Amino acid sequence: MFNLLDNIREPKDINNMSLKSLEELSVEIRKFLINSVSKTGGHLASNLGVVELTLSLFKNFDFTKDKIVWDVGHQSYVYKILTGRKDRFNTLRKYGGISGFPKAWESEYDFFDTGHSSTSISAALGMARARDIKGETNKVIAVIGDGALTGGMALEALNDAGYRKTDIIVIINDNGMSISKNVGGLASYLNKFRSEPGYNKLKSDINYTLRNSEFGSTIADSIGKIKDSLKQLVVPSMLFEDMGWKYLGPINGHDIKELNFILSKAKELKRPVIIHTITQKGKGYELAEGNPNKFHAIGPFNLGNGEVTIKKEVTYSKAFSDAMVDIGEKRNDLVAITAAMPDGTGLKEFSKKYPNRFFDVGIAEQHAVTLAGGIAKEGLRPVFAVYSTFLQRAYDQVLHDVCIQRLPVVFAIDRSGLVGEDGETHQGIFDISYLSHIPNLNIITPKCTSEIYPMLEFALSQNEPIAIRYPRGADGKTDFIPLESFSLGKWETLNEGKDFAIIAAGKMVDFAMQAKDILVKQGYNPTVINATFIKPIDTKLIDALIEKNTMIFTMEDNVIRGGFGETILSYISKINSSIKVTTFGFNDDFVPHGDVDILYKKYRLDPQSISEQIIYNIK
Amino acid sequence: MFNLLDNIREPKDINNMSLKSLEELSVEIRKFLINSVSKTGGHLASNLGVVELTLSLFKNFDFTKDKIVWDVGHQSYVYKILTGRKDRFNTLRKYGGISGFPKAWESEYDFFDTGHSSTSISAALGMARARDIKGETNKVIAVIGDGALTGGMALEALNDAGYRKTDIIVIINDNGMSISKNVGGLASYLNKFRSEPGYNKLKSDINYTLRNSEFGSTIADSIGKIKDSLKQLVVPSMLFEDMGWKYLGPINGHDIKELNFILSKAKELKRPVIIHTITQKGKGYELAEGNPNKFHAIGPFNLGNGEVTIKKEVTYSKAFSDAMVDIGEKRNDLVAITAAMPDGTGLKEFSKKYPNRFFDVGIAEQHAVTLAGGIAKEGLRPVFAVYSTFLQRAYDQVLHDVCIQRLPVVFAIDRSGLVGEDGETHQGIFDISYLSHIPNLNIITPKCTSEIYPMLEFALSQNEPIAIRYPRGADGKTDFIPLESFSLGKWETLNEGKDFAIIAAGKMVDFAMQAKDILVKQGYNPTVINATFIKPIDTKLIDALIEKNTMIFTMEDNVIRGGFGETILSYISKINSSIKVTTFGFNDDFVPHGDVDILYKKYRLDPQSISEQIIYNIK
Repeated sequence: MFNLLDNIREPKDINNMSLKSLEELSVEIRKFLINSVSKTGGHLASNLGVVELTLSLFKNFDFTKDKIVWDVGHQSYVYKILTGRKDRFNTLRKYGGISGFPKAWESEYDFFDTGHSSTSISAALGMARARDIKGETNKVIAVIGDGALTGGMALEALNDAGYRKTDIIVIINDNGMSISKNVGGLASYLNKFRSEPGYNKLKSDINYTLRNSEFGSTIADSIGKIKDSLKQLVVPSMLFEDMGWKYLGPINGHDIKELNFILSKAKELKRPVIIHTITQKGKGYELAEGNPNKFHAIGPFNLGNGEVTIKKEVTYSKAFSDAMVDIGEKRNDLVAITAAMPDGTGLKEFSKKYPNRFFDVGIAEQHAVTLAGGIAKEGLRPVFAVYSTFLQRAYDQVLHDVCIQRLPVVFAIDRSGLVGEDGETHQGIFDISYLSHIPNLNIITPKCTSEIYPMLEFALSQNEPIAIRYPRGADGKTDFIPLESFSLGKWETLNEGKDFAIIAAGKMVDFAMQAKDILVKQGYNPTVINATFIKPIDTKLIDALIEKNTMIFTMEDNVIRGGFGETILSYISKINSSIKVTTFGFNDDFVPHGDVDILYKKYRLDPQSISEQIIYNIK
Repeated sequence: MFNLLDNIREPKDINNMSLKSLEELSVEIRKFLINSVSKTGGHLASNLGVVELTLSLFKNFDFTKDKIVWDVGHQSYVYKILTGRKDRFNTLRKYGGISGFPKAWESEYDFFDTGHSSTSISAALGMARARDIKGETNKVIAVIGDGALTGGMALEALNDAGYRKTDIIVIINDNGMSISKNVGGLASYLNKFRSEPGYNKLKSDINYTLRNSEFGSTIADSIGKIKDSLKQLVVPSMLFEDMGWKYLGPINGHDIKELNFILSKAKELKRPVIIHTITQKGKGYELAEGNPNKFHAIGPFNLGNGEVTIKKEVTYSKAFSDAMVDIGEKRNDLVAITAAMPDGTGLKEFSKKYPNRFFDVGIAEQHAVTLAGGIAKEGLRPVFAVYSTFLQRAYDQVLHDVCIQRLPVVFAIDRSGLVGEDGETHQGIFDISYLSHIPNLNIITPKCTSEIYPMLEFALSQNEPIAIRYPRGADGKTDFIPLESFSLGKWETLNEGKDFAIIAAGKMVDFAMQAKDILVKQGYNPTVINATFIKPIDTKLIDALIEKNTMIFTMEDNVIRGGFGETILSYISKINSSIKVTTFGFNDDFVPHGDVDILYKKYRLDPQSISEQIIYNIK
């Protein structure tokens, strides 16, 4: 089907190709990518942006020796396709199939697993330093987006590498986007070189300089001679070069000739080198070029018009979005914060309506949390909307900058529990464990999307830190009557039974009710309790269960260790009760990618499995 | 006793003082500081470095309206002395006394609590944005050291503030140190302006420019005209100004006149302003100037010769230091990493002996962990030595960059449990909770300093991530026979009793043995178990206890929620045992500053309190 692509068996086949053939190959790869991802869904736009860059990397490096770390990693599709995974690419992000991120267990060509932003320079630097200690000579490369550069740890790594002069190549893949439009001083800064007339004007000058200077002397030195271009050129050289890096660029990331030239030169330098490439997210697919945001991570779509089959459902994110807009009207002290995800978190509408009370801080969760702390300290009510897995990065700030001072920050934690296709690095199955041991922090969770609104209002009525935890997607199978108001630490009894009690939190309440239906059919009559509050727990209700000597089962979409069930166990032990508690949740392991429904079955947390385990336990 | 200092009742008294009086006052304050801290101990050197800066701030701002955030906060003594806390300064860092860090509960002049590094710009930015939303006009200032600027979140905040043009003043207190000598590209970068001939040569030029230019136009623009100085001046203006900041400096941070001039101008600007001040850590106390590291945080000392009464004890840090040096000799794959604390963590000796296998990455815990991941991925054995409270900042990296890939990184976690005088922000009472729910991570803890060596050897023999957790200070009262080798998940029975079992971890093993002695005197015969492994737990030993129907008490110097005791509870529930377990640890609250022995008694975790609670429970 593809003249060139189909004949690539291993990366070294690319080494021998001419630049012209590589250009043809890039066309085939784009065709393959668009076609394949239209069927499986996945991260499309960022991969279309790095086709030429990836090919040029194969042309210049030998990845049986050299190493590469892809920051975040969702732009590694082209790399995967060319390292023996093309034929399995139709299994992308499916359970048991190819991961959407680099995975060492998947291929010997994946050198370091990524997923969260801004880790690549640190990891690559570690690999480079290990190489030096071992006395080896391979090259180590990190490819990082301009968005990921706003993450603090990337800057920490730049600082360290430049200082110790480690031999490493960092390629900035600058498309002016993170997931949405990029923000921050650094973005404006990078943008400055890219924008007319600087960039185009300079390109020829740079190439001229590169070709005509002794490469050993610094580019900045050579470039210093080009008087007219001084202003634009001093800028990049200063930020990076004064931190100890050699800066090369900016260059056109879709020009294989230019890329090839720069890479062939860069690999000769034995020191920290930054190559600044300008790329276009979605390149080569008109629909994605026009709307890279939509095609960042997309479900299966129609090739012709780019349309996605969207289920007509109200997701938790949408419910949150609506609630923020509405409450923002009533409360002018409401402030919203996102770390580069206004779309994903549902804050886009709020940002349009109340631009002065909305802050997109870039991929900077740590800063976002402490910023919220500062805002709360001054009497306003900040809501930081963030995915469960990304709030992991601000654990210290939640504890140290918000909870010690008991500041009324609301954490709106989306994508709690399983997220599915993104896999190990993105499952939100740790937040109960990393949050519920933090003093002064309360945690509340809705049983259905309609509870998001009153829950947010409740959170804003409290004068202390509170987290609202909710899952990806829409409501489950059970039709719930939403609670309209909440009282701190009070749970809701959904079914008054007598044989035993199931206490479930969040999404698991739906599963608990389905399990109850199965159990009822088998002659049992369980009590089902919605643990609206993960913290504080409803000790009165538990006391009542103990009074009746009712066996307790807990259900949560979080790891058992440190989770909600153990809070109950801890309480039971504290009051010297001998009532039996069984905790259902994830065992002590990471959960790979795949469809959420399949995963819940595999991990025996679906209603059927739960009912079977309960019956096994009570017998 | 002090002519000027004794007459200051409130900050506004300083407003009216002449610059000359302020200079005299600074001499008095230094005298007071040195004298007071020589008796109480505390952070001396950094406070001596900010005397003039603090006075100039009071001269120019009104802190009944304006706000200030001190990064880390241990340099806020002068500020505390001048905001009504001079008379209580003899209670510094004592239980119930003045905290060594800013505390909103202590004074209305402390606007935001700090403790960990690099948070101040984020917090101040939040306060500034809240001010703008509320339509108020006060100024917000953050004071941050050059060391703290290497922390990623500080850079995230710089990025955000510059972009949105928020009215905020950031003062870089550049003393070329973090706690030890500062490292990193940014440090070299800042150093560049400070070093001759640039700095001194430029000082007069800058002042000239400031005085003669219309202040509304950018300093950089004005300065651009000074041809001779171009190179040095372009540098700071580029890094900060292109990110949206107005950069002023560098200026002499001990020259009140210069400080006063810059601050009086800076406060007129309604935009992000950086003031770069050069100060000397330990200024004005010869012994501290010569050894700022020693006088960073110091116990009570002799005023004349600066000598501290050091207890002749082998601390855990010292045992770790010796072990690293020795094992480093045998294993050339051993690599050590610190985040700006070679002294505190005990890595100094290793760094001298094996400089090529030692990396000080600056105050950058996130980067440190992922760097370790990269090194481990390439087959070497990195040990990241870090305080429990600071590893909080790298929670995501431990989980995402090390444990998902099961990389054999050793985390040497010092200052676990109570650290005492530094208080809430520094107590290491959360690490069991934030680490033990992370899959693939094992946790081991020594009962005495002599076990550090074999434990480190054991950790290095494992091919997966492992944390060694140990407390501040030296061995406790009990003379233990150290174990010489370890077997994964195997605990040690220290006393074979019969009435009930106490399972204790780390430092608590000592307390458990002392509690046992008390209990024996009262006729009980408890089994005492040393839980060498916090994870995995010794299920065989627990099964044996269950077999004998032995009641279990657990002891840990960590919060109960998510802690070690709950792991035991979880196991008991899993195997459907009805044995009774009581968990001792810290309740769901932060622990303030004070002497560790006093705190253990207050929180009822000392041997006497534990024995009383056990007797109460078994009756």
